[in-house]
Amino acid sequence: MDAIKQFFERDHFAQRAGIRLLEVAPGRATAQMLVGPEHWNGIEGAHGGALFTLADFAFAAAANSHGTVAVAINASIAFVKSVQNGLVRADAREVARSFKVGTYQVELRDETGDLVAVFQGMVYRKRDALPGLPPAAS
Amino acid sequence: MDAIKQFFERDHFAQRAGIRLLEVAPGRATAQMLVGPEHWNGIEGAHGGALFTLADFAFAAAANSHGTVAVAINASIAFVKSVQNGLVRADAREVARSFKVGTYQVELRDETGDLVAVFQGMVYRKRDALPGLPPAAS
Amino acid sequence: MDAIKQFFERDHFAQRAGIRLLEVAPGRATAQMLVGPEHWNGIEGAHGGALFTLADFAFAAAANSHGTVAVAINASIAFVKSVQNGLVRADAREVARSFKVGTYQVELRDETGDLVAVFQGMVYRKRDALPGLPPAAS
Amino acid sequence: MDAIKQFFERDHFAQRAGIRLLEVAPGRATAQMLVGPEHWNGIEGAHGGALFTLADFAFAAAANSHGTVAVAINASIAFVKSVQNGLVRADAREVARSFKVGTYQVELRDETGDLVAVFQGMVYRKRDALPGLPPAAS
Repeated sequence: MDAIKQFFERDHFAQRAGIRLLEVAPGRATAQMLVGPEHWNGIEGAHGGALFTLADFAFAAAANSHGTVAVAINASIAFVKSVQNGLVRADAREVARSFKVGTYQVELRDETGDLVAVFQGMVYRKRDALPGLPPAAS
Repeated sequence: MDAIKQFFERDHFAQRAGIRLLEVAPGRATAQMLVGPEHWNGIEGAHGGALFTLADFAFAAAANSHGTVAVAINASIAFVKSVQNGLVRADAREVARSFKVGTYQVELRDETGDLVAVFQGMVYRKRDALPGLPPAAS
Repeated sequence: MDAIKQFFERDHFAQRAGIRLLEVAPGRATAQMLVGPEHWNGIEGAHGGALFTLADFAFAAAANSHGTVAVAINASIAFVKSVQNGLVRADAREVARSFKVGTYQVELRDETGDLVAVFQGMVYRKRDALPGLPPAAS
Repeated sequence: MDAIKQFFERDHFAQRAGIRLLEVAPGRATAQMLVGPEHWNGIEGAHGGALFTLADFAFAAAANSHGTVAVAINASIAFVKSVQNGLVRADAREVARSFKVGTYQVELRDETGDLVAVFQGMVYRKRDALPGLPPAAS
């Protein structure tokens, strides 16, 4: 899993947004983002794009956790609570996976444990190993 | 519309991602982002979060174009072509609007005019005027 | 909850599809459908529309379980396993609820417990009591 | 296109809902449903499941219009106007198509031309010809 963590450290956009991958295991991943003014939209709450990026990052880590490249084909997000400051944590889990397609759900929660957003995403799974990893079986 | 443009210039997260609002009119908005390495994910393509942020920004501008605050409640995006470099343009249009809810579609296209992603979002419409704007009728 | 059950027995389209409401409690509902040839599409599997209808029905029951009218504004569904025959069960749960909006997730599972589809829906909440019910507090 | 029309006439669930395929051409399809009491939910409007089924049917016809089997993997729908009676028409168009995946948008409109719902769906494309059709090239 360390190689997968290293792979996600090369994710420039997530790095710039201050997103950190905490944990990755087969079919699961956890990430966090410390929300502050740099994530705000015009009404001083975390931008939907920032929250989506956090969810998408955890989703990608979970989907690539089997060692082969998985490419996001679509995603939907429901925003249920606004956040202004503080840690937001994203927990992604694999809901279903076939040879070619995988489905994932992500929950975003704030420091008090309240749900901030729910995310659902789907990937197309390639046979290629992740860059920097040996070819995988699954 | 200038006041609305100014309002969106206070959007820190979009500013940091290099997103510019080109045009806003009632129920419509156009924005663009010059994609480069700072937008890349681990496989050197524009991050889904960066493309979502661009779409979400154009969506928010179109939804707030009537002068009252509109808050995104959910959104879905389908990614159809990857982008590595160059301008991506987002065109948002209002598909339906009632007193309380609005529905918007956004198309993202690359420099060659190819579709990069399609986005659909919904807002909950408040009665409050946008910060810095006089109270609105609609 | 009996009045809510009776209300859902007036749902013609769900009745005609053979859908039964098994249980409803505040923020939750369970329904089932016995899939057979009448639910098939052209390749002899349960039609996406039939599975969506089952999920949507459980979602509506959960969303109306507080006694006031809740109107679906959007929904998304991911299909993960095809079904040809047998019981499919839908479990809906409330993920978040504010004064005006509610978010729900539904899981569809076949007789072996395998996931068939995951559904996410959002309602706009009115103040009106459900037809046939006294005005509610929540 | 006649063979494709015949194929969709074997769609039991859509037949039972009174859905008719009006037209199919490469990447496009039009269908209609005459909404009446048999399509109602408990508040006497067309059931979300009935509207979804109509949209999904037009989507499937457009996605299978190239002669090979395309299987829906997910879909989202936004409901923007309720309908009680009368014709609802669904126009589906292909937004993007690669070797393996296709993306489609569907608009549902009532007899006055008002938008009833917008739908977006994605298919996984197999190599198999549609049952009853010769193997296809695309």
